[in-house]
Parts: sequence; C-alpha cells; structure tokens
Amino acid sequence: MLKQPQQKYRAFAPIALPDRRWPDAVLTRAPIWLSTDLRDGNQALIEPMDIARKLRMFQQLVKIGFKEIEVGFPSASQTEFDFVRLLIEGGHIPDDVTIQVLTQARAHLIERTFEALDGARRVVVHVYNAVAPIMRRVVLGTDEDGIVELAASHARQIKALAAARPGTDWRFEYSPEMFSGTELAFSKRVVDAVTEVWAPTPDRKCIINLPSTVEHSTPNVFADMIEWMHRHLDRRDSIILSVHPHNDRGTGTAAGELALMAGAERIEGCLFGNGERTGNVDLVNIALNLYTQGVDPQLDFSDIDEVRRCVEHCTQIPVHPRHPYVGDLVYTSFSGSHQDAIKKAFAARRDGDVWDMPYLPVDPKDLGRSYDAVIRVNSQSGKGGIAYLLETEYGLELPRRLQIEFSQVVQAVMDDMGKELSAADIHAIFEREYALGDAGTAVLQPQMTEVGGGAMRVAAEVVLGGWMGRVQGEGNGPIDAFVNALSARAGTPIRVLDYHEHAIGSGADARAVAYLELRVGDETRHGVGIDGSIVRASMQAILSGLRRSPAFAMPHKQEQTHE
Amino acid sequence: MLKQPQQKYRAFAPIALPDRRWPDAVLTRAPIWLSTDLRDGNQALIEPMDIARKLRMFQQLVKIGFKEIEVGFPSASQTEFDFVRLLIEGGHIPDDVTIQVLTQARAHLIERTFEALDGARRVVVHVYNAVAPIMRRVVLGTDEDGIVELAASHARQIKALAAARPGTDWRFEYSPEMFSGTELAFSKRVVDAVTEVWAPTPDRKCIINLPSTVEHSTPNVFADMIEWMHRHLDRRDSIILSVHPHNDRGTGTAAGELALMAGAERIEGCLFGNGERTGNVDLVNIALNLYTQGVDPQLDFSDIDEVRRCVEHCTQIPVHPRHPYVGDLVYTSFSGSHQDAIKKAFAARRDGDVWDMPYLPVDPKDLGRSYDAVIRVNSQSGKGGIAYLLETEYGLELPRRLQIEFSQVVQAVMDDMGKELSAADIHAIFEREYALGDAGTAVLQPQMTEVGGGAMRVAAEVVLGGWMGRVQGEGNGPIDAFVNALSARAGTPIRVLDYHEHAIGSGADARAVAYLELRVGDETRHGVGIDGSIVRASMQAILSGLRRSPAFAMPHKQEQTHE
Repeated sequence: MLKQPQQKYRAFAPIALPDRRWPDAVLTRAPIWLSTDLRDGNQALIEPMDIARKLRMFQQLVKIGFKEIEVGFPSASQTEFDFVRLLIEGGHIPDDVTIQVLTQARAHLIERTFEALDGARRVVVHVYNAVAPIMRRVVLGTDEDGIVELAASHARQIKALAAARPGTDWRFEYSPEMFSGTELAFSKRVVDAVTEVWAPTPDRKCIINLPSTVEHSTPNVFADMIEWMHRHLDRRDSIILSVHPHNDRGTGTAAGELALMAGAERIEGCLFGNGERTGNVDLVNIALNLYTQGVDPQLDFSDIDEVRRCVEHCTQIPVHPRHPYVGDLVYTSFSGSHQDAIKKAFAARRDGDVWDMPYLPVDPKDLGRSYDAVIRVNSQSGKGGIAYLLETEYGLELPRRLQIEFSQVVQAVMDDMGKELSAADIHAIFEREYALGDAGTAVLQPQMTEVGGGAMRVAAEVVLGGWMGRVQGEGNGPIDAFVNALSARAGTPIRVLDYHEHAIGSGADARAVAYLELRVGDETRHGVGIDGSIVRASMQAILSGLRRSPAFAMPHKQEQTHE
Repeated sequence: MLKQPQQKYRAFAPIALPDRRWPDAVLTRAPIWLSTDLRDGNQALIEPMDIARKLRMFQQLVKIGFKEIEVGFPSASQTEFDFVRLLIEGGHIPDDVTIQVLTQARAHLIERTFEALDGARRVVVHVYNAVAPIMRRVVLGTDEDGIVELAASHARQIKALAAARPGTDWRFEYSPEMFSGTELAFSKRVVDAVTEVWAPTPDRKCIINLPSTVEHSTPNVFADMIEWMHRHLDRRDSIILSVHPHNDRGTGTAAGELALMAGAERIEGCLFGNGERTGNVDLVNIALNLYTQGVDPQLDFSDIDEVRRCVEHCTQIPVHPRHPYVGDLVYTSFSGSHQDAIKKAFAARRDGDVWDMPYLPVDPKDLGRSYDAVIRVNSQSGKGGIAYLLETEYGLELPRRLQIEFSQVVQAVMDDMGKELSAADIHAIFEREYALGDAGTAVLQPQMTEVGGGAMRVAAEVVLGGWMGRVQGEGNGPIDAFVNALSARAGTPIRVLDYHEHAIGSGADARAVAYLELRVGDETRHGVGIDGSIVRASMQAILSGLRRSPAFAMPHKQEQTHE
C-alpha cells in the first residue's frame, strides 16, 4: 500500500491574491518564444546530441520561426563551447535570430562564457543562481543577504564584460533558480537587486525569467505567483517577464498559459516537451493552442511531422502516439458515432466557415496531417482487427501509421460491399492496394556500384504502371540512390520518412517485407514490397508507394526501355 | 507556412463569473474516482482488448482501489456484452466495487443494456445524448426542446426498467455529451429535466457528469463552467457532480484539478491518460498530485511499474519516458549540479522530516521506484556516452532501464578512480558487474521436457556464487520454468519484468545476448547473459541478476551437486 502521505508531504501554500486578474484574461497574441531544446532539452538526454544533431536542431528551430534560441551552456563543457563557436564562425545564425547562452553566477564560468561568444552579433547572456530556501540551507550554506550579493555582484561582472566588448549587441537575462519553490518576497528582493545593477530602460529591457524548476502546485498557484511578481517587481516597464515551466505534475502547458495570462510576455520551453525529468513545457502545444483560438502563434508547424522526425532523430526519444497535435492517434476516430458526426459536419461545412467540427479541435490539414477514420473488421474485438488478422494469418507486421492508412482503404471497400470481411478478403485488398505480386510494378536488373566516399550508384529498369524505362542515381546506399534516381527522372521530390522491414517465413523460403513511408511532393504515402532480397523488397516498396501517389507521374508515358 | 488562423478559428468565449471562488480553493481530499479504461480507453485502441486483457485490467483496477469502474458499452457490441456477463456470472466483482455501463439515449440500446446487467448486485447505468449546438444542427437536426424531451424520456425509460428489477441496486448517471462545447444555460436546462425525472434525494443521489468531450479552452474556463453549473443546477444537494476531461490541448490534468476545486466531487478518466485521440484525463497523475500535497488519494500506486506493465500489455501502447510519476526518466538527474544538490539534501534529511528534496517532488520509493543519477563518461558528448561506447565497440544494445542502472555502477567506479574511462574500461566493468564469462555463475546440462498442456519442465545444475546444486521446475516455457525452479529453491519470489535479446556477431560466431529485468523480492535488478543459444543466454541472465540481488540467497551454501 502507498504510505499515508499526511506526515511526509506538505501542501503548497496558496498565494494571498484575492484581487487576482488573470482568470479574466484572454490570450490575444503570441508571446516571445525561447527554445531551450539545445540546452535544457539536450542536458536531459541519455545520449546528448552530437554536433551534427545540434546543428540540425538549430536549423529546424530557425525554420519554425524561433527568434531566440538558447544554444548551450558553453562554460560547462567543451562540446557546448565548440558548438557556440561553430554557430558564430560558420555563419549559421540568421540576422533576425538571437542566440542565448546559460551560465551559473560564478566568475570563471562567466568569463569563459564571454570567450565562447567572441565575434557574435547579438546575444542574450542568461545567468542564474539558486535562491530557494532548500538550496540556501542545504547546498549553499548562505543567508538571504549572501544570495542577494551573489546575484548582484555577478550581474556587475556581466555588465562590465559586456561593456568591454562593444562589437556585440548584448542583452541580459536573470533567473532566480527554483523560483517555484522560493518565497515571493525574497525572489522580488533578488530580482530587484539584479535590475538595479543592470539599469534596464523601456527601450533597452532586460529579461527576468521565473522558472518552475520543479512543478510543485496546481497551475493557478503558479499564475498567482507570476501575477504577484508582475505587480510588485521594481522597474517593471523595463523588464521582459519570462517563464520557464517544467511538467512534474503534468500541468506544464496549463502553467505556461495561465502565467502568460498573469503578465508574463515570454516563455522558455522545448519542442514536444523534451527536458529534465517530465520535460520542459511543450512550446508546440502552447503555440497550437493559440492557433486554434484564432491567434497567430508566429511559429510555423504546417508540416508538424517533419518537426517531429527532427526531434525524434536529435533526442532519440519517440513522441507519444497521444501527444497533443502530433501523436499518431490524435486525429483518429475509432468510434462509429464519432466518424458519422465528423462526416456530416464535413458535408455541411462551406469554404470560409469558422472551424467547428465535432471531435476535431483543429483542421489536421493545417498541420500537414489528415483525418483518419479507423474501422475494425469486427468492432471491439482485437482478434478481429485488421492488423491482428494480417499478422497472425500472413505474418505481416504493419507499422502503426500504415495500419491507419490501410484501415481507410478497407473502410472504403466495406462501404461499397456492405459486408464483414474475412482475413483472406483483407489480405487480397492489401495485395491489390500495395501492388504486391503485380507485374505492373517491378524493378528489373538493378545494378549497384560503389563509387567511393561511401556513395553508391544504382541503375535499374523500372516498370511503374504504364511506364517503363531506365533510371540511374547515386546516394548513401541503394535505397537513397534509387529514390534519387526516381525523383530526378520524374521531377518530383521524394523522401523516405520511415522504414520498417522484417522477415516472413524461414530458411530457404524466407522473404523480406519492407514498409516505407514516403513523402511525394506534398503527399504522404506508404508502400510495401516483398522479395527474397531486402534491397529488392525496399525498391518494390518505393514503387508501390509511388504508384499510389496522385502527386507522382513519370514524365513520358510512352517511353520505352533501353532509350 | 501555417495559414493565418484569424478567419478560420474562433476564440472560446470566456465565462462571466467575476465572483468565481475556485481560484482560492485548495484540494484537501480525494474525489470519487471512476475508471473508464475498459470503455473510453478501450474504444480508442488500434487493437481493442480481448476478454483476457479486459479481465486483467479489471483486476488491476480493483487492486489499485477503484470502487467505481465503467466496464463497457454492452449494447454496442457482443464482446462488451459478453464481458459484462462474465464479470457478473464469474463472480469477479468485489462487494465494495460498483460496475458502470454506458448507453446512448436510445430505447433499444437501453433495453439491451438492462439485459446485460441481469443479476448484478449494484450498477451505475450511465446514459448520454448529444446536446451541443454543432450536434443539434448537423447530426441530429433537432431543436432545444427536442433534445430536452429526448433526454427526459430516456431518463423515464431507465427509471422504469430499474424499478421493474428490484433485485439490483441501481444508480443513474447522465452526461450531456460535448458539455464543453455547449451553452451553459442549455446544459443546465437538459440536466434539470433529467434530475426532475429521476428525483434524486440527498440520501439517494444521482450522478451528473460533465465531459470536456473535446478540450476547447484553457483549463480556467472549464473550471468557470463547472463552478457555474455547481452554483446553478437544480437539486444540487441530491447530485454527485462529476467531470470527464479529455486532453486535446494538453491541459486535461489541470482541467480536472481546477474542476474539482470548482465544485466537482467525482472524476472519470484512465490510467496514464489512455483514451480517444490525446486521451482521457490521467487519473494516476491527479491521484499522485494529491499525494504529494499530503492528501491520501485512496488509490494505491506503491508499485507503479506493475500498473504500468499491465496498462502497456492491455493497451499495447507504451508509456512515454517523460510521463509524470511513471516514465523511465522522471526520477533521473543527468546534471552534475542537480545530483550534487540531491546528494546533499539526502544527507541532511532525517527520518520523519517533511519531504523537501530539490528536483524530486515525490520520494520515488513511495511508488516502488528509485532515484537514478545518470552520468556520462564524457559529459555532453553522445559519442562518449556509456551506451554509445558499448554499442559501437562491443555490439551491446542495452535497454533503457539497464542503461540507467549500469550508469550508477560506472559512477561508483569513477568516484573511486577519479579518472575518465575508456570503452575497454567500461566493458570490463560491465562484464564484472553482470558476471559475464564468470565460471561462478553458470547453468550446466539444462534439460527441457514438454510435459503437456503447453507446459515445459526444466532441470539443470546451477552454479551461483558459492552455491552449486540441482534445480527443477515447470512453466509456460524454459525461462518461466527456470525462474520457478530457482524461486522455489531459494524461497524468494522472482518475476521477469522485462526481456530483451539480440544477436551479436554473425554466421558461425553469432551469439545471443539477453537482458532481463527481474523483480527479486522487493528489489528490481537487471541481469545479462551471453551464449550461442538463446535459452542458455536467458538462463545466464537470470543467474546474473540473482547474483547481483541482495534479496536473494540460495538456502544451503555448502550444498553439493547430485543431492
């Protein structure tokens, strides 16, 4: 049994703020966004990002539209130092993007931080020190006066180092660490001491960032704390008030939103909520919550799956299938009554209407996704499900997104036929849909040659619907080369988004089945291939996906082989 | 680019409730919990649970302490009907547990529902109909009066059917479907019409359940809506006010908590937030948020990983590594300064102290977990990480929880040696820690015999530290039989919690490496085994884990083989 908590845990004390105003506030514009994917997000990974991953993440963040990006803690490790240098010296930072770096309030770390920033155009130097009572008592052994002096003296050091380097446009940010676990009056005292040193003005503001380092209370209490600071801080008109929520109680998104209603103007977090423990607040979630309320978030998630693939690659942590706005299952209806309501509402909807769709708070198309109605062959019984039947009867283990796609194909057939389907029926639909064993989709005589530098050249005869011809291309491996060959020939960009392959059968009869998710132009399509060779199976899968894509057509339908 | 949202999306209208009271409320006791894992959770699975999974889930819910469990929608499918019959006829429902079933407000479905419940001791019949304007306009084609009459007439039918079956203790629940998207005054009108029919009393309350079928607004707006209903509903003293939040905006937990502050007394949701789209509200999250505020949740998550394994098995959806309270990474510190603060705070803590630990909002031990401090061999660089080095240099792909466990072993060695470690150093520590190639941990001459009914008997000579002897047992397969044999011999319960196996090398040199996570008594330990045979590798891994477990000791240290 769980131990009785009454003696061990203490309730968070509510804030006395009877005239609070945030519950009547409505968010009407985007906050200033700060991505800390490369700092707080990165430091919480089992395998932190290498330089290549960091650069890919940085470029993705720029593409989304972040104008402030925390890129690391350069005084903490050589890797982070080197990455900051690479960004500056490699010219990777667009003119309208400001990088931010974190440093503890310690003199040698601050000096090293400025070294890392030599030659930067514009930077936010973000300094923090612990202010919470548990940290004062147990870790630092310092009283309140000592903490105030610690913060103020390092603020002075930063101001002086910046003044000595006029070639860079410096901005300053201060975080009272564990603000969420600190007495409000003391947080105010420390922050006021720092802003007294920095002397910001309304034209030249500094950033005061209030983290819920650990989430301790319901989000309304955090909002009360932010409103209290918003109303009590000195020099408020010269401060950009920022928050940095974590998600220990599963209410990080709510805490972020209510804090913005309570007076914060800026928010720090990560894509899809990566970060220490339960994560930093999910900025995609907050941005798209604004979007669905008619507020332009100033961040672009029109191809949310591309962002997701980048994050999964860089963090090596998957996004959950029920993650808001992006999970595999969030635009899926399983229930017949939900499907029916959505169908009727789509039919009633006219162009230009406000979005008001049952069970769909956002138009999936706005995010590059589609609405999926998933049916079961026997509603409710897992053992009657499409994926189950294909796996147990035919050894086919369909990846989740392919299951969803194929379910819609089966749905259409059932709507036409109006009867329940057997495993054999479903398998026949699967073979037809993905052109398995269809001589009209074939790759003949593929030839693969190593061409040095790790690259490979592939040449093959291809039959694709009514088209037949020779294609040739290079790439990192045979699949990449084959895709490049087809893409060049057709003049349509093709990318492999996801790839699964497994064996069916064993011994001499074993074959490989490949499932590829392709982006063809603006469309996403799956393809399936089966062959004794894993390479041919993959090539077949690519052709299968292309044949299913309306966006794809070979250029000269009449072209003959051996041109 | 994302399309401009201003024309397409409309902001949710705030509620005029300037004298709202919920922002000053503090939660001081557990709500009534209703698990809908078997209904709303189940209907949102790609592969819905089969009967065996449903029964396992039901028993897990009972074990956790749920007293109200929604077990299905028996009029919607034969599988659900059969499961309700199984629960009733099989005597699976404890005396203090009430089952609940859902039905739409349609006469033949309600009749079928009562058929499914024949002979039940105590039931909540939960009826719903759509009330939202989009549903009235597009789906039902009915005006407000029509909806009120629809709800009232089916409430009368339910009351009559119940009255005719006095052998069962009937309770009623009504949900105005899409409450979150409905005008408050109209929701009140429909609910009042239903309670007028049911005529509940303070001694004999009915349940009024207000769903955020789709989450449309910040959680404070939902709280305002609940407080409005709480203050305006007729017969309030005879109503148990319930909420049923979903999570489309990622704020389901917050919406649930604020709704409880606003007057709701009961909450419906699922374990770890399974359910349609982004899920139902996560009841584990809400319960443990209460726990860490000193409130007894009346639900037992003292072995949260066991609950997680059950949910993952039944739903076939993994729990995310950053999921609050239960994810693999949520009690893990990667940062040296976090580790240092936690270490100092543990040292300063005395028995009986209130829990006040930096970066740890709950004592992981209370949930059957442990605190993990993860180090990197080269801080920051992924390519210097332990898991990376073992994988690239030695082909070992450690599962995530084993990575965390082994990191602590390496940490201890580094603390002793005070130097950076090479890949070879780490591999040597790995071999020593998991007794790989150690003749003191061996299984000799394992003999496996099929004994009918799918069972298998295993007999083997075992060397385990200083002990050597013969063990024998039966189970579903060789691993299960071997674990049972060792468990019986030592008198310590052993369970296999998780299992991974992969090949290293290829062709004639290929070997299998098995990683097993074991529960030995109250301890969790990993073991690793390598062998040309997958069965021997697994057996070696079990012995490896047992040898590392302080909870395990063979009974007679001096016992010789061939007893």
